[in-house]
Amino acid sequence: MIGVGVVGYGYWGPNLVRNLHAHPQVRLVAVCDLDPARLDLVRRDYPAVRTTTSARDLLADPAIQAVVICTRAESHAELALASLRSGRHVLVEKPLAASGEEASRLVDEARRRDLLLMVDHTFVFSPAVRKIRDLLLAGDLGRRVHYYDSVRVNLGPFRHDVNALWDLAVHDLSILDYVFPHPPLEVSCIGVSHMEGQPENLAYLTCWYPDNLLAHIHVNWLAPVKLRRTLIGGDQKMLVFDDLEPSEKLKVYDKGITVTSNGGGRDALMVDDRSGDMWAPKLSNREALALEVDEFVAAIARGARFPADGEAGLRVVRVLEAASRSMRSRGLPVTLDPGLVPLGNP
Amino acid sequence: MIGVGVVGYGYWGPNLVRNLHAHPQVRLVAVCDLDPARLDLVRRDYPAVRTTTSARDLLADPAIQAVVICTRAESHAELALASLRSGRHVLVEKPLAASGEEASRLVDEARRRDLLLMVDHTFVFSPAVRKIRDLLLAGDLGRRVHYYDSVRVNLGPFRHDVNALWDLAVHDLSILDYVFPHPPLEVSCIGVSHMEGQPENLAYLTCWYPDNLLAHIHVNWLAPVKLRRTLIGGDQKMLVFDDLEPSEKLKVYDKGITVTSNGGGRDALMVDDRSGDMWAPKLSNREALALEVDEFVAAIARGARFPADGEAGLRVVRVLEAASRSMRSRGLPVTLDPGLVPLGNP
Amino acid sequence: MIGVGVVGYGYWGPNLVRNLHAHPQVRLVAVCDLDPARLDLVRRDYPAVRTTTSARDLLADPAIQAVVICTRAESHAELALASLRSGRHVLVEKPLAASGEEASRLVDEARRRDLLLMVDHTFVFSPAVRKIRDLLLAGDLGRRVHYYDSVRVNLGPFRHDVNALWDLAVHDLSILDYVFPHPPLEVSCIGVSHMEGQPENLAYLTCWYPDNLLAHIHVNWLAPVKLRRTLIGGDQKMLVFDDLEPSEKLKVYDKGITVTSNGGGRDALMVDDRSGDMWAPKLSNREALALEVDEFVAAIARGARFPADGEAGLRVVRVLEAASRSMRSRGLPVTLDPGLVPLGNP
Amino acid sequence: MIGVGVVGYGYWGPNLVRNLHAHPQVRLVAVCDLDPARLDLVRRDYPAVRTTTSARDLLADPAIQAVVICTRAESHAELALASLRSGRHVLVEKPLAASGEEASRLVDEARRRDLLLMVDHTFVFSPAVRKIRDLLLAGDLGRRVHYYDSVRVNLGPFRHDVNALWDLAVHDLSILDYVFPHPPLEVSCIGVSHMEGQPENLAYLTCWYPDNLLAHIHVNWLAPVKLRRTLIGGDQKMLVFDDLEPSEKLKVYDKGITVTSNGGGRDALMVDDRSGDMWAPKLSNREALALEVDEFVAAIARGARFPADGEAGLRVVRVLEAASRSMRSRGLPVTLDPGLVPLGNP
Repeated sequence: MIGVGVVGYGYWGPNLVRNLHAHPQVRLVAVCDLDPARLDLVRRDYPAVRTTTSARDLLADPAIQAVVICTRAESHAELALASLRSGRHVLVEKPLAASGEEASRLVDEARRRDLLLMVDHTFVFSPAVRKIRDLLLAGDLGRRVHYYDSVRVNLGPFRHDVNALWDLAVHDLSILDYVFPHPPLEVSCIGVSHMEGQPENLAYLTCWYPDNLLAHIHVNWLAPVKLRRTLIGGDQKMLVFDDLEPSEKLKVYDKGITVTSNGGGRDALMVDDRSGDMWAPKLSNREALALEVDEFVAAIARGARFPADGEAGLRVVRVLEAASRSMRSRGLPVTLDPGLVPLGNP
Repeated sequence: MIGVGVVGYGYWGPNLVRNLHAHPQVRLVAVCDLDPARLDLVRRDYPAVRTTTSARDLLADPAIQAVVICTRAESHAELALASLRSGRHVLVEKPLAASGEEASRLVDEARRRDLLLMVDHTFVFSPAVRKIRDLLLAGDLGRRVHYYDSVRVNLGPFRHDVNALWDLAVHDLSILDYVFPHPPLEVSCIGVSHMEGQPENLAYLTCWYPDNLLAHIHVNWLAPVKLRRTLIGGDQKMLVFDDLEPSEKLKVYDKGITVTSNGGGRDALMVDDRSGDMWAPKLSNREALALEVDEFVAAIARGARFPADGEAGLRVVRVLEAASRSMRSRGLPVTLDPGLVPLGNP
Repeated sequence: MIGVGVVGYGYWGPNLVRNLHAHPQVRLVAVCDLDPARLDLVRRDYPAVRTTTSARDLLADPAIQAVVICTRAESHAELALASLRSGRHVLVEKPLAASGEEASRLVDEARRRDLLLMVDHTFVFSPAVRKIRDLLLAGDLGRRVHYYDSVRVNLGPFRHDVNALWDLAVHDLSILDYVFPHPPLEVSCIGVSHMEGQPENLAYLTCWYPDNLLAHIHVNWLAPVKLRRTLIGGDQKMLVFDDLEPSEKLKVYDKGITVTSNGGGRDALMVDDRSGDMWAPKLSNREALALEVDEFVAAIARGARFPADGEAGLRVVRVLEAASRSMRSRGLPVTLDPGLVPLGNP
Repeated sequence: MIGVGVVGYGYWGPNLVRNLHAHPQVRLVAVCDLDPARLDLVRRDYPAVRTTTSARDLLADPAIQAVVICTRAESHAELALASLRSGRHVLVEKPLAASGEEASRLVDEARRRDLLLMVDHTFVFSPAVRKIRDLLLAGDLGRRVHYYDSVRVNLGPFRHDVNALWDLAVHDLSILDYVFPHPPLEVSCIGVSHMEGQPENLAYLTCWYPDNLLAHIHVNWLAPVKLRRTLIGGDQKMLVFDDLEPSEKLKVYDKGITVTSNGGGRDALMVDDRSGDMWAPKLSNREALALEVDEFVAAIARGARFPADGEAGLRVVRVLEAASRSMRSRGLPVTLDPGLVPLGNP
């Protein structure tokens, strides 16, 4: 049994708590939140779990081996650092930290102490994204991938602490980090706030990869409809991932273009579109968070590799930081220093 | 009866010819195409119409009062100029010309000769876009419009003569020119070609308007599915225009955000999303091109104002040109000279 | 506080337990199930709740004022009767009982003892069905309603204890009982089993109402896709209720036909279809079961009228019984005795 | 070249004329309609085609080898008989005739004179229905097919000459006749008219086949939305055919149920649902009528077998007749005489 303490029981915390509590090898020891009313809910639903308003108090509990942090992004670094320094493994809600510098310090601290630093990049554990990675690794979309285009828009909630980029685009960046072998070379971002003095609620983020692979992410808190649709185009096949579909979330199209040269110049090149079958692979119905808790347990108990480690979290934060910088200059491309961003997936 | 000659019977020409032929006040006099096989089709379907491979020959016909040009964009300017110089009114397929300079010359020539220069901005005549303009003019979406976001993607046809911007984004630019009172101040565009030596098949175009109104257009010839969806968000209501829906193409959502201040600072501002009814106004089933031919006839015969005149065509070409310039510099914003772009809709 | 005991913690019980537990005026006293493994789950999620495998034991608890029964249909009558006889109010999962005779006995017993007999006709508490009833009562679809057509199909679960009619059509019959002022006059049902010796997995049920109003219900456990769509047509407007839509579940169409007579005979009558706006009224996001528990509490604590009372449950069971009889004779219409079916909604 | 004359240029005639005219081996000689205004349209669009208001006149033209009849159902038999007696091959719009007796007389006359009698069962020529037949013949849905369920509803046009069964259900009956090896054994139909003195606008038709295969067809002229969806369930796989989808009209689901016996009685039988991939085979984009004209030409010119021959037309009319009889008795099953219905597809 792994003793776990959770810090933060606001919007996302209850989901992690529910899945931690349901896992047979986890003992949910304590939950901490600054708001006593939130702790009332914990006691109502999990009477056996200790509650506290003090993270220091929670870290003092010797029954806790791992700490899960689901607070606002701005407090991630401090809480994670304290947890690591007290010798605990840590799982941090996305984004890992509010800046690359903070995230980098966490990665260093975890490495120095030989502790696990894990990031709750939830989509990395979803059956659809797992299947997308398998398809890409197997070359099923072709030898080259041309683009990744994601639309992630809905109406609210309107946040004050982070903008739509750090709130929503972070999901796509974590997926990109997981399914592509390289981090982006350069990013460019355009975004605006439509509420005086509030964070940007609408943003368009472009990531440049080698070989003209372009990733584009559209996030918006002020959309009349909820959309979660990603297109990925390869030179042989293409796919659509629509996360709002109750079933057949992933559709693979045997479509593309065929080029025929007839010896002449540019116009002599015939480019025909080619259309074949569509195929929707069966996906597991398992909740992503349940799988994430499984792998969290496996990492702590058996040393298994957790797919969203601190370095993945750091890479994603660095892209967010670069995107924010580009956004302030109305979309000027910002180059990512490859030396600072260790490659993730071997 | 207005005698009309059509130059170009390729991809789009047959649609205009069909609608011109069906109009009771139009006499379709002659069709010109360089390819005799295309002219065989004309003779099969319209035996009474004269065919010719020579535009000069067509312009020599005194029965022709107006010329409709549906050739490749690169020949628009020359053919339109010759038509105007021969004293004919002209309707040119979009884009009006291959450059702002050419388009400007056409506008000048038409003004000097007091002839009509019209552009086939087809969407301007679609019932859905007409309704969108009415809603915006009436302030039904609120006092401010926040964004226009359009996705216009599909698989092929892959063109050699123009890129996806000039092929597809031109539709959105003509809609924007029609529904918004001002042209954009600045544009920024990112695009790539995934086929060595071919035009850009994927592009993201952003137009900046006053008051943080942002228009963003995503075009792609290599998408596995066809999408034609536009979101427009105002401070009171929002709409979705899905041109692929067989009915209820336009949906207006009584949704938005409500801001409540409780006297404190930034965090004290409460921003809540607000959700009400959805309403899909009835739209006419009339084909846009049929309405366009009606207005073409009304403009020539009765001096009615044609909503997509040469200046509208020029404004759209100037945005395309600026977008192309931005695209070559990986998205650097390009400012549009307001002096060069006369305001359209009063 | 109302002390509540729940009998049955199988497929549906956990949903009722979760909503009962969350209600501030309910004290969930005990849960009973024959299967000890199910009771382990109760103890895990609700440590403060007493568990027992004996319904008799549960009924002996003086802290319990109301009993909620979520067992198999065949044991509903016996358990409900015992609960009423012990002086408790009762809420029974649909269908109220396995036969009209049993259901009738329950209604009599509750009346004699002046206790509440309530049926868990869940849809009666859903925001969409509430709105449908309001629209019909207000005459918003016109003076006459022509048809109710429902498709309720999916893949499994395949049940052994009841057929698809008693499992799925019961939902539509409870909706019909709630939204229409009269019970059906006659029913006709065609159904088959595609598994030797198993209950019918596919059925088509037709209910005849006065004035040519026809209700038709298609249920199927062996469908490749899940569908939950109801069409209701009136002489002025029509609606579509699609329960699987995440939002805009209810769409009201200002569509119908217009009849013009020009004095002649049958052919002289011109029937034109008429098409207007579509409107999707905002619906509450509240879970139906949460509202049901509210009204359960209001009925017990304050004598409010519970909209799905024992007589509603009895009427629905009688239609199911008649439908089963019709099904055995390959669809012969079976008349419902109006004397036996007291009118429900005044 | 085959000389063809067409009788009837109302709702459907123009579609057949357009496809006949486009076929390189057809010479469209003459079109007949009682309404001179309709003939004006013919002359406008096909100036080389002779027009006449007299069918007798058309039949007198020696250039005509085959007659295509697109008039109201009640005149099919007389016109087809006259055409056959004048030695012409005949293609009749569905339904072949207004009664089984008439249809039978046509079949006999064609056989006696060794002429082709063809029926315009359009769906038989659609790529989706062709693929469905291939899948069924190959046993791809399993050894047994359990059901065919079709919804074919829309708003208008409201017809006076035939009811919704003869107008819409005829399409499904022609598909059933084409894809299943046997005609139905028995039919049962419920339908109503919601307009005094007008034909039934809403009907539910059930066809019983051997081995508990049930086909059910829902047709309605008064529906707020247009639906064209067919489910077919086999014991191994199931499919959905949605004719309104612009692409992926046909989806094949590797879904079904798995039965496991553990030696006990009824309840010991475990029935689990099984869910696998979904697959949408590529379908030709060819218009069904274009393929139909191809096969019409092949049948006349080269003796190829036309898949919807007179006997198919007769079988479909017999089912419609039996359904009408059942509808008049509120759904009493009507047995089809197998001796009268020769088997079609070998």
